[in-house]
Amino acid sequence: MIKFAQMSAEQSSVSQNKGIPVAEPLVEVRRGGITESRHRGHVIAMEPDGNMVAQLGAFETVTFLRSSAKPFQALPLVVSGAADRFGFTEREVALACASHNGEPIHTELAASMLKKIGLGPEALKCGVHEPYSVEAAQQLRERGEAPNALHNNCSGKHAGMLALALHWNAPIETYNKAEHPVQIAIGKAIARFSGVPIEDLAVGIDGCAVPVFGMSVRAMALAYARLVAPPSSFEQTTREACARIVRVMSTYPELIGGTSDRLDTEIMRAAPGLLVSKVGAEGVYTAGILPSEKWPRGLGLALKIEDGDDRRARPTVVIEALRQLGVLRDESLEAVARYAFFPVLNRPGEVVGEVRAHFELNRAGH
Amino acid sequence: MIKFAQMSAEQSSVSQNKGIPVAEPLVEVRRGGITESRHRGHVIAMEPDGNMVAQLGAFETVTFLRSSAKPFQALPLVVSGAADRFGFTEREVALACASHNGEPIHTELAASMLKKIGLGPEALKCGVHEPYSVEAAQQLRERGEAPNALHNNCSGKHAGMLALALHWNAPIETYNKAEHPVQIAIGKAIARFSGVPIEDLAVGIDGCAVPVFGMSVRAMALAYARLVAPPSSFEQTTREACARIVRVMSTYPELIGGTSDRLDTEIMRAAPGLLVSKVGAEGVYTAGILPSEKWPRGLGLALKIEDGDDRRARPTVVIEALRQLGVLRDESLEAVARYAFFPVLNRPGEVVGEVRAHFELNRAGH
Repeated sequence: MIKFAQMSAEQSSVSQNKGIPVAEPLVEVRRGGITESRHRGHVIAMEPDGNMVAQLGAFETVTFLRSSAKPFQALPLVVSGAADRFGFTEREVALACASHNGEPIHTELAASMLKKIGLGPEALKCGVHEPYSVEAAQQLRERGEAPNALHNNCSGKHAGMLALALHWNAPIETYNKAEHPVQIAIGKAIARFSGVPIEDLAVGIDGCAVPVFGMSVRAMALAYARLVAPPSSFEQTTREACARIVRVMSTYPELIGGTSDRLDTEIMRAAPGLLVSKVGAEGVYTAGILPSEKWPRGLGLALKIEDGDDRRARPTVVIEALRQLGVLRDESLEAVARYAFFPVLNRPGEVVGEVRAHFELNRAGH
Repeated sequence: MIKFAQMSAEQSSVSQNKGIPVAEPLVEVRRGGITESRHRGHVIAMEPDGNMVAQLGAFETVTFLRSSAKPFQALPLVVSGAADRFGFTEREVALACASHNGEPIHTELAASMLKKIGLGPEALKCGVHEPYSVEAAQQLRERGEAPNALHNNCSGKHAGMLALALHWNAPIETYNKAEHPVQIAIGKAIARFSGVPIEDLAVGIDGCAVPVFGMSVRAMALAYARLVAPPSSFEQTTREACARIVRVMSTYPELIGGTSDRLDTEIMRAAPGLLVSKVGAEGVYTAGILPSEKWPRGLGLALKIEDGDDRRARPTVVIEALRQLGVLRDESLEAVARYAFFPVLNRPGEVVGEVRAHFELNRAGH
């Protein structure tokens, strides 16, 4: 097993050229017997005490958590007592952790959260986009309705942030600003779980206009390991909040993504109660594997597709990594087979190629 | 200057890992002061005699020409006399080289080509997809019409292949098969211009169900250098056909792409008569720069985005490579500025990052 302090240059290979870390080939796009295109990236799995169990690529590469931050963005909402004070249900707490599809089951919950705190959709700063769900978007169009902020995949997260601002008597107009108490509390939680000092976190602005935090892919994996198996040194309220967030995410996978066709949802459905799964934009993926026979201490998995692809590269890499780690097996692997491999079709519909994962994680100590 | 025979392992760096050639970082996706994602690839510029003038990445990487093959797929149509026999106009020859938008100006030309050879759209084997043009697709929907094969971006190419089959009294039902005389003639043309023996070309099936040929990125650049400045050893009919194809592509850029928003079209509009520009699927790009003061012998440029991205990586790399080669300057560079750099916006519309080319071509001998 390799400890934190030992992970340095010798594990993280550096390109001869320009000092840019080497991202490893992970996915092949095949046609006519050759690899036409290739996706690279970084993958790492960590135990909560900092032991690295598998890796590939330059896992010290710093990138943004994006929506993989959502469980940690919901944490202060729960720890503070705000979620209970406003009577948020378990499903509403789940929606605070979601990148949801904008289906009615999601927008109704977001509206309910806002109603409980006495606000309307106009208080949300996340902006507006069409529902991710093609069906939900089409239904809106057929009714001649424009999408609103409730359809934004982050509306539950933002409703939770507003609840916390109210709970703390902090301004609600500026809840999305980096200097706001809500965002400071989130930054502290992310620093603590990732093991990265808060002053060393990269900070940018996310698609939904709140601060987004950057760290190494390794630190992301550690944060997820600690989410599912928080250290005993963390106070009880925090450990209980982690357990609650893990429970609501794995109990309501359709709220985290959607009723169908969403990677997180299908993985959590395929392995019920075994893990929490959360995608982030630009090809980020994180999962927390609950303690079990295979991984008795729990496990955090994080990966980044270097080029940001979430269409064909991320799903194939995620399924293959979970397979190699022994997390998805047999029926659970069958259930997500559609994400493990994509045929390449021509316009008349014939199979002329394939997209497939092609890598082997380096195992450390196991 | 480095000659063909000298280009071997020392120019084409090979990864320590698994022997996969190292694609060089070309594009940075920046947010919050860090590079969030990165696109890699291979770039090379060649003179028609095989002199390499600039390169970056592993230019010996073999990939498919995809739609960058189109000028060469149109070549036998012209050389054989079929285009003249059927009275194809210069605009119709241009459409045979196009990846067009499916706008009325394109579908009407494709229909006209078919009419001249006595066939209808049902003879096209390219399959059906919605027009690339968002406007044209919306107009179809508003009229309650389904797209047909004429809207396929390759319909002009396929109409040309059918014309050649008829000209040679070859079967028209199988014109898209690898063993058909039309495809064999195209394979021979591509082998000749690229300098790759026909038996060494990779062969797959393209999105439009015809054979697609694979070769190194270097060989692609050479083929385009020879398209704009064919060697005097090539017979006159071939050299004249090259001149005609180059002329129609640069004279009718709106037919090669569309009336707006298409990279090839905008580049050829920005530098009228200076070059032919042709994108291919999976992040391929090729251009032939006509002999001029800057490049008196003419130049072929080819590049491949390793991960296949054509949305944000290819355009920025294309513009930057043409800038570094001195092909686009001053006003012509200004005219394509929208492809050189992309802001990253959040949902409320604020700029939170940027996509920008970040590389320097290695120059050889100049």
